[in-house]
Amino acid sequence: MRTINAEVIGVGTELLLGQIANTNAQWISQQLAVLGIHVYHHSVVGDNLERCSQTFQTAHNRSNLVIVTGGLGPTEDDMTRDAAQSIFGQKLVTDEESMERIEHFYVKNNQPMSPNNRKQALVFEHADVLQNLEGMAPGMIVQHESTAWVFLPGVPSEMKFLMNQHVLPFLKDRFQLEAEIASEMLRFIGIGESQLEHDLADIIQSQTNPTIAPLASEGEVGLRLTAKAASSEEAKRLIETAKTRILAVAGEYYYGSDNITIEEKVLKMLQDRGWSIASAESLTGGRFMDRLVSIPGASSVCNGAIVAYSAEVKERVLEVPKFLLKKYGTVSEECASCMVLNVQSMLESDVAVSFTGVAGPDAVEGHEAGTVYIGLQLKDQQPIIRKFHFTGRREQIRNRAVKKALEMIFHQLKK
Amino acid sequence: MRTINAEVIGVGTELLLGQIANTNAQWISQQLAVLGIHVYHHSVVGDNLERCSQTFQTAHNRSNLVIVTGGLGPTEDDMTRDAAQSIFGQKLVTDEESMERIEHFYVKNNQPMSPNNRKQALVFEHADVLQNLEGMAPGMIVQHESTAWVFLPGVPSEMKFLMNQHVLPFLKDRFQLEAEIASEMLRFIGIGESQLEHDLADIIQSQTNPTIAPLASEGEVGLRLTAKAASSEEAKRLIETAKTRILAVAGEYYYGSDNITIEEKVLKMLQDRGWSIASAESLTGGRFMDRLVSIPGASSVCNGAIVAYSAEVKERVLEVPKFLLKKYGTVSEECASCMVLNVQSMLESDVAVSFTGVAGPDAVEGHEAGTVYIGLQLKDQQPIIRKFHFTGRREQIRNRAVKKALEMIFHQLKK
Repeated sequence: MRTINAEVIGVGTELLLGQIANTNAQWISQQLAVLGIHVYHHSVVGDNLERCSQTFQTAHNRSNLVIVTGGLGPTEDDMTRDAAQSIFGQKLVTDEESMERIEHFYVKNNQPMSPNNRKQALVFEHADVLQNLEGMAPGMIVQHESTAWVFLPGVPSEMKFLMNQHVLPFLKDRFQLEAEIASEMLRFIGIGESQLEHDLADIIQSQTNPTIAPLASEGEVGLRLTAKAASSEEAKRLIETAKTRILAVAGEYYYGSDNITIEEKVLKMLQDRGWSIASAESLTGGRFMDRLVSIPGASSVCNGAIVAYSAEVKERVLEVPKFLLKKYGTVSEECASCMVLNVQSMLESDVAVSFTGVAGPDAVEGHEAGTVYIGLQLKDQQPIIRKFHFTGRREQIRNRAVKKALEMIFHQLKK
Repeated sequence: MRTINAEVIGVGTELLLGQIANTNAQWISQQLAVLGIHVYHHSVVGDNLERCSQTFQTAHNRSNLVIVTGGLGPTEDDMTRDAAQSIFGQKLVTDEESMERIEHFYVKNNQPMSPNNRKQALVFEHADVLQNLEGMAPGMIVQHESTAWVFLPGVPSEMKFLMNQHVLPFLKDRFQLEAEIASEMLRFIGIGESQLEHDLADIIQSQTNPTIAPLASEGEVGLRLTAKAASSEEAKRLIETAKTRILAVAGEYYYGSDNITIEEKVLKMLQDRGWSIASAESLTGGRFMDRLVSIPGASSVCNGAIVAYSAEVKERVLEVPKFLLKKYGTVSEECASCMVLNVQSMLESDVAVSFTGVAGPDAVEGHEAGTVYIGLQLKDQQPIIRKFHFTGRREQIRNRAVKKALEMIFHQLKK
């Protein structure tokens, strides 16, 4: 297998103006990653001949696979062919099959064809032409010196059609991709990124196949394992071996792999036990229950919630005694405890969660923003009440509270 | 005004693997476009010192403003500082204010700080340090030869905070942006994009300064007006004139400009009246109340909600009579009506909203996914119950229901 330095270039001023995100580069990169092709650069350049030519020249110098999207349209602005010509020095000729399809489109739709549309059928004389059954301009594959160039339209549906139909099969063949790739994202909760990396330092540093890449996101950490081997079975076995080593150290925090979310994991754990859940929410305003309800099948588990945002609703609907609110305040362990017990009983649920605290920006009852009490009640066990100081702005504090409650339920149910 | 060649560089292998799209480059480009700064290149490079240094060298050669996002984290992979050092040759020193904030974070959260975290406080000795109140690593502005370099964390919330607080004001000053740009986004609800464009066709087609760009998003339409003039006052005056013409046609659907959301508008209208609100939510699972509670100051208006996801909670907590549920079903006008009346009375609120319906994917009680009843009760007026058939998947249906309720409240309060 040859070493491949791949680069993905997006051509279009709309990208540089931020009118659209470069999701083409993202999608193409995902496909190449699955084939084990390393993408080392993404570039975006506007509809400008000089800068477009320079960008292509740079790619020619450093990459042996270049995938270009965009700039194949009918207007004056569309420069990809002209810029590429400055590299290849190949003539442009009309692709008759594409020309027929374009003409047919205008006849069928009873629209006049503008002379510009003829431009879309132009291809390099030594190109492999990729017939675009989803649109006008054909794709092209051009071999120039040691670099394979792929040109695709910028419209995502057309680009994906040509990638799937033509380019991915070509790449497998062209680069004799014999190595099979397997990949798994391990998901952890309740441990920070740097702590996890520290605990796994020996494994991460000694490991080259699979590679292990940490990725932190809001209150969670992921580890992406990517293995290469001669067979798919062997690649999967390498992943399994590394995963076993990792989970021996950090298994306590592992909740699942790939696309699962902690909400889905918690819902699944509850479903497996045949348990129901309810919440009493103040600062989270219903967000905890909303997150669970967003998952199809939630109705087998979710009874509902009482969102007691005002003190009056805490007292009148959730039946938190007035003397308790007066003595301890709404931001207190006692209030969280009473909320969780009462909602469990009122909504007749096996598990209940409560949230009371300060989302900010202002302090409440002398507690600064970020002070949050979370209550958790499982069946007839003692309620667990924990106090947190979350940092960040109002939305982050509310999200962190929800995530933390999911983490608490996960760890309790795992026991 | 100097000519600016700006470039936006994203650092991170997760971008090259396609795990995330480069939305940072998109957002930054939008901000620079509003300032009239031309972005000529986007580049993405992975966590590799050599390629990162080369990408920076290319930027140094061709751009006089370079904005780099990502690679400032605590791990071995984070290369941005090292790569930039190869260009600047400046020493890295610890920024004490950032170091204190990082230490404070770990103390406050009662988590051990790993030695790696110290790395995040390192800044170039001649940098302007941008204090990151949303996260760990500070931003930096470094002037090197004729190029201004801006370094920002890759986490979007931190990047945006530093851009808004520090970088955009710096750019206005640094590049003496003399052509003044004024821009306003007009927001409409209750009218579709094509209808709005049709109604405003004459205005949109005849208008060149300001330009008018429609932008549809979930259940709403925006019109972005952008005017250029010699003075800021003149640019604003051009916007005002066009706005007046537009609102004369479509003012009924206009709820506000720029960053306001329909949630904020509704909350504000309730605040102005001194009215409170409550909700009874089935398929929306608390999302309606959560949206309102996400706004600072919600406590003056939001009493709370009863999330009655199961039929039992509708009956027992919301007191919807058993015979009603039996006769009409939970997905019915009668149920929505009873829910809205009961929650208004139980939570003693001036305004109440109810949601009952089918989020999908499966049908319920013979009603297909997307069937939703929304109830609205203002004071002691007759309740308004409307039936909808929303399209889309589970999350879209739930979001559309919430948005539609906000639209209904807005139009009722506007009367």
